[in-house]
Amino acid sequence: MAGRQAGRVVALCGGIGGAKLALGLYNILEPGMLTLIVNTGDDFEHLGLHISPDLDTVLYTLSGVADPERGWGRADETWNFMTELGQLGGETWFRLGDRDLATHVLRTAWLRGGKSLSDFTELSAHALGISAKILPMTDHPVRTVVETAEGNLAFQDYFVRRRCEPVVKRIRFDGAAEAKPSPKATNALSGPDVRAIVICPSNPYMSIDPILAVPGLQCAIKNATAPVIAVSPIIAGNAVKGPTAKIMGELGRVVNTQTIATHYRDLIDALVIDESDGRDVAGIRTPIMATRTKMESLADRIRLGREVIGYGDSLTQKSAERAARVGQ
Amino acid sequence: MAGRQAGRVVALCGGIGGAKLALGLYNILEPGMLTLIVNTGDDFEHLGLHISPDLDTVLYTLSGVADPERGWGRADETWNFMTELGQLGGETWFRLGDRDLATHVLRTAWLRGGKSLSDFTELSAHALGISAKILPMTDHPVRTVVETAEGNLAFQDYFVRRRCEPVVKRIRFDGAAEAKPSPKATNALSGPDVRAIVICPSNPYMSIDPILAVPGLQCAIKNATAPVIAVSPIIAGNAVKGPTAKIMGELGRVVNTQTIATHYRDLIDALVIDESDGRDVAGIRTPIMATRTKMESLADRIRLGREVIGYGDSLTQKSAERAARVGQ
Repeated sequence: MAGRQAGRVVALCGGIGGAKLALGLYNILEPGMLTLIVNTGDDFEHLGLHISPDLDTVLYTLSGVADPERGWGRADETWNFMTELGQLGGETWFRLGDRDLATHVLRTAWLRGGKSLSDFTELSAHALGISAKILPMTDHPVRTVVETAEGNLAFQDYFVRRRCEPVVKRIRFDGAAEAKPSPKATNALSGPDVRAIVICPSNPYMSIDPILAVPGLQCAIKNATAPVIAVSPIIAGNAVKGPTAKIMGELGRVVNTQTIATHYRDLIDALVIDESDGRDVAGIRTPIMATRTKMESLADRIRLGREVIGYGDSLTQKSAERAARVGQ
Repeated sequence: MAGRQAGRVVALCGGIGGAKLALGLYNILEPGMLTLIVNTGDDFEHLGLHISPDLDTVLYTLSGVADPERGWGRADETWNFMTELGQLGGETWFRLGDRDLATHVLRTAWLRGGKSLSDFTELSAHALGISAKILPMTDHPVRTVVETAEGNLAFQDYFVRRRCEPVVKRIRFDGAAEAKPSPKATNALSGPDVRAIVICPSNPYMSIDPILAVPGLQCAIKNATAPVIAVSPIIAGNAVKGPTAKIMGELGRVVNTQTIATHYRDLIDALVIDESDGRDVAGIRTPIMATRTKMESLADRIRLGREVIGYGDSLTQKSAERAARVGQ
């Protein structure tokens, strides 16, 4: 695989936005060198099926079967299950495609049979020909609950059924404090051979915070020797897509780079921001690299991935030089 | 609904063959006048889904969405779920269509939520616009086990996975002796207004016997005042379709009308046989009507249904005349 880079990279991500950078990283690294730790706070039980939206988006994106238009679910999808479900009076607010359903049915059968979410994710990744390691943040149940002006809503209730309309007051992650991280995830983070830990430009409050809410994962990131680099989801003082900006406003946060830098400040060594926000960095002490972070094409994803890794390498280099100077 | 007949009819049936006559009866009776008691011995749990093959065949047949070629499953079916399931390494020996899957997923969710199989069947029949009452023989688990020369096989293992190849030694119905019948089924059978009880030309050993193995149902049929009429599945000394003849041979039974008459002798008042077997009745004491029982078209189904009901009426008439003579 000519032109691919050596060294292991660990990335934290949620669904659509995060999966774009994950795909970029996947394309530039040697096989087996990318580990993705994926949010499972959005997981839920629906029609008796265990659904893991972010894991599926990552699996489908990296294997090339994701629908490029919708951003979620599978390409060449059909909806006959959904049509008949509606005919039978079943709930249709959460769209399940015929192809997609294979993942949910088989995962549910595996979980009921005593296997873990990690086991099933590994199987799926292998079956779909993915050489990256895709890990659920934990095999324990963590459920994102959105406390809104209209009451507490399970994540998918808020996100899909209510289309993010209710005003968010607080977001909590039930079960996270007790959840043990996947041992493969902590091992991946703490390895001495890790080149960089990347926080993808997913929604910090809804997609990354649930991962950080698992105490073992937060510790492992803080103790890691590799540089931790977050990619800001803000572009030109707004969120690229999805409800990030709306939620930030409702939580009383200004939608800008500083808010993101403050949010991740105890965790990261550096922040990658969009070039359009380059002047919006007053008072930020975290090292910053500004570049084009909008990922429209696969080439954009690959270029950004390469820049983030290169930036991480430069931080490692600097810190080695500093250590050498101190040692002199 | 001009031309439709009054009076309630209760029919016992399994899947494909039985559903043909059920459809004929459904077409000639006034709405709400047909009750079907359906075999659930073939039910099984597959990929975590509760599948009721015979109930589904009856539901799909009566609502007009059954696939006319295959004989099972739905028309205009697609198989994308199955394709992706195979890609993920899931078991694909039992074919589940995308449309069909809505029934299995919703039924499983209902059962897990504490509803009964009867509840779900009623919902589905209503949603599919069926005015007949379709009742599972019981809401308790009964599982048909085929004892073969190659060991004991769950029904679908024998029937679908092994394509009925292993030699049958005995068929048993685990759970039947303890199963309580659906109260709606016993009520339907024992009502004083029942015009006829019809045993459809399903496989007697695999589709009707499990129903009769539920003690409450066998009693209710024996105590019923309405005439009980079985339609033989034998045509010209062979079974129309499926493994009936092969199984009869393996169980040491001759494939003819006499065997069927003997099988049902304690239960039925009359037997309807195919005209091709009209001379094969020596020694049978059960009243017999010979007609054309092969059902190729909807017209065949309707004609046979009408003849069976008419034959039942004539038996009722005779017995009334006999009672009147005795009373003189």
